[in-house]
Amino acid sequence: MILSGNLLLGQTPTPGGCKAIHAIDPATGHVLQPAYGGATAEQVAQACVLAQQAFDSYRETSLEQRAGFLEAIARHIEALGDALIDRAVAETGLPRARIQGERGRTCGQLRTFARVIRAGEWLDVRVDPAQPERQPLPRPDLRQRQVALGPVAVFGASNFPLAFSVAGGDTASALAAGCPVVVKAHSAHPGTTELVGHALAQAVAECGLPAGTFSLLYGAGHQVGLDLVRDPRIKAVGFTGSRTAGIALCQAAQARPEPIPVYAEMSAINPVFLFENALHARAEDLAQGYVASLTQGAGQFCTNPGLVIAQRGPALQRFLHAAAARLETVAAQTMLTPGIFTAYQAGVDGLAKHPEVRFIAAGLAGEGANQGQARLFEVDAEVFLADPQLKDEVFGAASLVVACTDDRQRRQLAEHLEGQLTATLHLDEADLDSARALMPVLERKAGRILVNGWPTGVEVCDAMVHGGPFPATSDARTSSVGTAAILRFLRPVCYQDFPDALLPHALRQDNPLHLRRLIDGRREA
Amino acid sequence: MILSGNLLLGQTPTPGGCKAIHAIDPATGHVLQPAYGGATAEQVAQACVLAQQAFDSYRETSLEQRAGFLEAIARHIEALGDALIDRAVAETGLPRARIQGERGRTCGQLRTFARVIRAGEWLDVRVDPAQPERQPLPRPDLRQRQVALGPVAVFGASNFPLAFSVAGGDTASALAAGCPVVVKAHSAHPGTTELVGHALAQAVAECGLPAGTFSLLYGAGHQVGLDLVRDPRIKAVGFTGSRTAGIALCQAAQARPEPIPVYAEMSAINPVFLFENALHARAEDLAQGYVASLTQGAGQFCTNPGLVIAQRGPALQRFLHAAAARLETVAAQTMLTPGIFTAYQAGVDGLAKHPEVRFIAAGLAGEGANQGQARLFEVDAEVFLADPQLKDEVFGAASLVVACTDDRQRRQLAEHLEGQLTATLHLDEADLDSARALMPVLERKAGRILVNGWPTGVEVCDAMVHGGPFPATSDARTSSVGTAAILRFLRPVCYQDFPDALLPHALRQDNPLHLRRLIDGRREA
Repeated sequence: MILSGNLLLGQTPTPGGCKAIHAIDPATGHVLQPAYGGATAEQVAQACVLAQQAFDSYRETSLEQRAGFLEAIARHIEALGDALIDRAVAETGLPRARIQGERGRTCGQLRTFARVIRAGEWLDVRVDPAQPERQPLPRPDLRQRQVALGPVAVFGASNFPLAFSVAGGDTASALAAGCPVVVKAHSAHPGTTELVGHALAQAVAECGLPAGTFSLLYGAGHQVGLDLVRDPRIKAVGFTGSRTAGIALCQAAQARPEPIPVYAEMSAINPVFLFENALHARAEDLAQGYVASLTQGAGQFCTNPGLVIAQRGPALQRFLHAAAARLETVAAQTMLTPGIFTAYQAGVDGLAKHPEVRFIAAGLAGEGANQGQARLFEVDAEVFLADPQLKDEVFGAASLVVACTDDRQRRQLAEHLEGQLTATLHLDEADLDSARALMPVLERKAGRILVNGWPTGVEVCDAMVHGGPFPATSDARTSSVGTAAILRFLRPVCYQDFPDALLPHALRQDNPLHLRRLIDGRREA
Repeated sequence: MILSGNLLLGQTPTPGGCKAIHAIDPATGHVLQPAYGGATAEQVAQACVLAQQAFDSYRETSLEQRAGFLEAIARHIEALGDALIDRAVAETGLPRARIQGERGRTCGQLRTFARVIRAGEWLDVRVDPAQPERQPLPRPDLRQRQVALGPVAVFGASNFPLAFSVAGGDTASALAAGCPVVVKAHSAHPGTTELVGHALAQAVAECGLPAGTFSLLYGAGHQVGLDLVRDPRIKAVGFTGSRTAGIALCQAAQARPEPIPVYAEMSAINPVFLFENALHARAEDLAQGYVASLTQGAGQFCTNPGLVIAQRGPALQRFLHAAAARLETVAAQTMLTPGIFTAYQAGVDGLAKHPEVRFIAAGLAGEGANQGQARLFEVDAEVFLADPQLKDEVFGAASLVVACTDDRQRRQLAEHLEGQLTATLHLDEADLDSARALMPVLERKAGRILVNGWPTGVEVCDAMVHGGPFPATSDARTSSVGTAAILRFLRPVCYQDFPDALLPHALRQDNPLHLRRLIDGRREA
């Protein structure tokens, strides 16, 4: 497939009428062809009109048809073959194996949601049958199901060009819920985006779905994204990116005549707590695991361990010594974009210049463009507590170790943190009481809590929570990874005293979809 | 019990330090004693500090303990006896039987949530067991449960002094979820509020719960409410009231450094569609049911049928004629407050003066203060479509009949509407196709759709949705009535590779709470 640089307005490839963007190979700084013209305000509106026109039909596709559609998307992505891998590597600087793994994850995610659609638990069918004899008033027949919210705007993420972009988790869960999707491509990987968009469009055509089920827009700067979020036909937004951009989208969504939910996954430093006995027993092993997690993918993961909290003392010194020794052997890695590299440099420079932050170690310096060099710093708890800027995420392979004095100060540090995607505990049997004392704080602060592991690596499953209190996300009630992500794009509707023939299939008396309904307070077996 | 006029800061009755309010008997205009001093900013903060201090302990009470607490609240409300009924009648002008019924509903609601707590479905436990042998990477053990959001601010509603005030649906569902509650009393019924607040405080003491589990604040004007929503310790808001006030609270919540969800139930005109065959077959019966629903409780229900849409013709004339004849016999009723009465008068005056709106009928005029006189108007579809103000709710027993020409225009009218709590269809077998054609629009517009009934009367059950797209509510994904209301105050937390001893009981391997867990994608029987 030859890249065209076109938008996809429904099934129609269309040249964008605004300023074009080009991808840049971050490893070389070279501009990649073709040009991708930005969408005009009219083109944004047209994509939204098409999505709206598709909505009533798409949301009532059968479970089987919709599941088949998601499976078809996965198949068409796989059929892109090496062309997709080559382009994604060129646009992101990520290693080939990582991109291949991410393709597997993306297709696996689509197939997982196909399973979720078929199982139908997300419909959450509740039936309270009529009680005509009830005193003082009869009870009507009441039935509830979940329906799709409406067209959803999805923003591609820089750090997951496949798994959190065009056909990534937000798109898969929105389509699974019955929502048409309009994607705003991330400007760092437009070619990857076009390829996956083409696969998605092929699946739309193959499954005979309305053209507006999926559209794809490019655009330099913020205008296309803001136009999209402000369009009255858009009913929800999925976003993964910076705190600044996420908050701007939330504000735009709230300022609409009809405010809409924004699911923005934004910012986290993912604290790791090393408890005394564990640290004493295996400081060196912990240091190995830590540096591996910190530097994986140039540290460009939302769940990157940017903060370590441990008690001052010889065991922490051993940990720092081992981590420094390991870090100094880690090669520099190409970062995703020149902008991300520049921001990372500014972040580590800020830490290096901080008079009370101690430099511990750096990874190997790189040659060529945008080479992120890992960094490790240490600071005393008192300084960390006094300087709110030290809580800011430095996106990349930089981490700060905070040395505290005791359980009390550890708890104080935990309370001091903002909302997080993850919190990690390294502990031994003898640390359980200290860990237990910290749990209430961590449950308030984080979406996922891990024991004796590392936060990078987010499993796509039913129990996953990739979410957390603000500013980790804009909506702590949700997860953007795993099957619970579908719940973000649904709302309940109640049907009272409906004749069976007018009810949606999910609610009919003979239960044609074989759902496990909640009937009069009891769940069907 | 003698009314004190005190705030409740946790278990401590405290005189408010700000400008006092008094209740007014709307039937007489007389001021009722005692004075209720408004909370100072410090007192608001103190209630929130207490709520925060109570949170970690209260949210981990056992299911049995929390269910027992809600049942104790119901018992203590019932123990207030006639004193509660007398005061509520005096403060609201509502008939005694209505207040008695509402007390039953309020206590029933608390007991329903006790059942919900014990059943534990709201914990939504999901377990994905470890797969240590999986290739290329092992899967960790992942477990998810729902935890309480944090302290919740609840605003009492003017039109449900018991069922949507101190111990009403918002409070019951927040407490059920494990959230301490700080109530801002509605200024129209402070005495009713104090009595119920006392019952709640007694239940807190009896169950040995932390004092901050419940606090109660009064305040003239908006300041106390805004202070409460802006307090960093508050994590969610429940509100039933006007669109203006609801939007102001949403904006305050979004402007916080940490934005929080607001569940505001605001404004609806609850369209009723009379289809041709049904209207032809029983225009007079429909008119009786309509006027009864419209004028019940002086029309002061969120689900009051403020709009009727039907095809122009002889059957609609029969309906209007019968509705007018019935309406003209309906006695005026005391409205809840002088402010609500004044706003109602302004609303009906606006309709009466509209050059293209036809006056159809009025109820009987009243004598004395704040007597709401029912009103019926008619307008052509073209006028309704052209004048957005005609979509505004007139809170009270006023309704507008819109005469349309055909199915196409009926659909156009439906599309023209804002989000609604309810939509109602009156139909016969022969109307099914017309109704079916309208369903996609109604499902997008309303939280509950009824056939051959009337929207007033909101059953408290599993399948109820008292919610809907903006501006019916600020969050279409939720319901404020029925058991689904608990879901508003929860968020998921994932526990990865936890030793069993550190897991919360809901997630332990031997399932001590006997929950029906989702294990590896399968729901336990």
